Amino acid sequence: MMKPVILTGDRPSGPLHLGHYVGSLANRVHYQQQGWTQYIIIADVQALTDNYEHPHKVHDNVFEVACDYLAVGLDPAQTTFFIQSQVPEIADLTIYYLNLVTVNRLRRNPTVKTEIEQKGFRDSIPAGFFVYPVSQAADITCVKATTVPVGEDQLPMIEQTNEIVRTFNRIYKKEVLTEVRAIVPEVSRLVGIDGKTKMSKSLGNAIYLSDSADVVAQKVKSMYTDPSHIKVSDPGQVEGNTVFTYLDVFDTRKDEVVELKGGLGDMVLKKRLTEVLNNFLDPIRTRRAVFYNDKASVMEILKKGTLVTREVAANTVQEVKDVMYLNY
Amino acid sequence: MMKPVILTGDRPSGPLHLGHYVGSLANRVHYQQQGWTQYIIIADVQALTDNYEHPHKVHDNVFEVACDYLAVGLDPAQTTFFIQSQVPEIADLTIYYLNLVTVNRLRRNPTVKTEIEQKGFRDSIPAGFFVYPVSQAADITCVKATTVPVGEDQLPMIEQTNEIVRTFNRIYKKEVLTEVRAIVPEVSRLVGIDGKTKMSKSLGNAIYLSDSADVVAQKVKSMYTDPSHIKVSDPGQVEGNTVFTYLDVFDTRKDEVVELKGGLGDMVLKKRLTEVLNNFLDPIRTRRAVFYNDKASVMEILKKGTLVTREVAANTVQEVKDVMYLNY
Repeated sequence: MMKPVILTGDRPSGPLHLGHYVGSLANRVHYQQQGWTQYIIIADVQALTDNYEHPHKVHDNVFEVACDYLAVGLDPAQTTFFIQSQVPEIADLTIYYLNLVTVNRLRRNPTVKTEIEQKGFRDSIPAGFFVYPVSQAADITCVKATTVPVGEDQLPMIEQTNEIVRTFNRIYKKEVLTEVRAIVPEVSRLVGIDGKTKMSKSLGNAIYLSDSADVVAQKVKSMYTDPSHIKVSDPGQVEGNTVFTYLDVFDTRKDEVVELKGGLGDMVLKKRLTEVLNNFLDPIRTRRAVFYNDKASVMEILKKGTLVTREVAANTVQEVKDVMYLNY
Repeated sequence: MMKPVILTGDRPSGPLHLGHYVGSLANRVHYQQQGWTQYIIIADVQALTDNYEHPHKVHDNVFEVACDYLAVGLDPAQTTFFIQSQVPEIADLTIYYLNLVTVNRLRRNPTVKTEIEQKGFRDSIPAGFFVYPVSQAADITCVKATTVPVGEDQLPMIEQTNEIVRTFNRIYKKEVLTEVRAIVPEVSRLVGIDGKTKMSKSLGNAIYLSDSADVVAQKVKSMYTDPSHIKVSDPGQVEGNTVFTYLDVFDTRKDEVVELKGGLGDMVLKKRLTEVLNNFLDPIRTRRAVFYNDKASVMEILKKGTLVTREVAANTVQEVKDVMYLNY
């Protein structure tokens, strides 16, 4: 098997949280350890498609997200970070790919359909948002990625990319672009502290990698547990108890967690979870603080990664333009 | 009044004809004579939105169209020619402008609506075609054009550009982009040799600037005239007689044309029109042949103009990205 080339990343619309860690950051660290080629896109252009009135927010979160990456152990010597807006080759490819997708096909994209509802765009869908699956195909193909880790709900985006790849190669009669394979990680989401749905910034139910120990303690205190579990002697209801969900993920002493499930008061459990999370987050926070206080170095890392990416992307654009006879 | 900055151009989907000359090329020569700043875009990217399966055709016509420009007297020392695909800054701007236009607004664009019908796209409208008004806004604003000559039917495109300009400046709180003014030339179209509708390549009713004297003679012979005008002695019906339409435009001896309208056989009229057209086209053909036989020089002219344009466009992109905080 050929060594995979991974493309993954985030919209910089807020700092990253434990949900991101569990669902993707941990896997990225793993890919890095495998020695795979990995590009991580900080997708500011995509973030702008539904934040175009808040460019400052997007700008600031590019740095925040980069600090999060570095804090969890993603290493610029092994993994290439880049800022989407600084790779104009992506825009160039997007424009050519747009010819290969119909308006109706975009309208049928299930991921976009759901997001349009969630965001309440109704009759005012920004065209930029509407076509972002095409721009995503450009993100992926510009570095000739072979493999993209995605959540279940993002699978239609990969299908859209592969449709573009196949149509392009067929019309322009050369295998310039490569189809990609999706990896759907086993654990792709972590429930929020409200216990209701996935952890998400917009739902206000997140614990951030950058939260202080005190903030973590407070958030754990407010966690949804089992309302029927009043006395310590009552058998603890484990199912639907968010504290246990988190302990299962983050507590390394699995045997003790099993014992705890026998029945213990919320106070005790939450104290333990606070400790567990803070133990987990401590080294991340320490590394994060170092990077956060040296913005120049972080931005230099992004600049270097972006340059590397531009070189690869420029090659792809050249190949694309060559088969389209856009060479004069 | 500030000196205007003109942006105008053509989709390179075929060589240019007399309709182009009357409707736009003559005006461009006039703007040049006024000493106005003029950019002429050879819009290969736009041509691809409905010719993406025929990239070779688009490629070849870039050279053809450039020869036509030079043949009619457009002078690269005074007018800047550029190839759209070679100015990636346009793609970059397009992506940001797409956020400022809704899908429904694009659907309501009357020009695009009509074209979608004409082209028979039905349910398969390529997204690239659908969004081309936004790409056109990028063409216009990237060189900070103040003035765009358009036919009546293209006025909605200018309105779309100005909407984007206003929205951009409002959201990003700086007058980075400039609204443009449309000029609608007095004579904006020439009827085809079939007398039915405007001269157009796709309708097969065109006389090309590059047609030989013999081809011109043949095409004039086939022209639609007045079927009821059989004898020389009959008073000639002038209205709807395509030969007279052309004589009115191209015959410089206006008094003689008035006399001819008194009544003359088709043969005589057509002979005269053939002479008039060939006299008009002779110097154009001669100049065209010189350029056509020196492709390297023509492409060098386009390359230089494209470089000049890229410099201006890169400045615009920088300003746009600055107010969007896309600087790191």
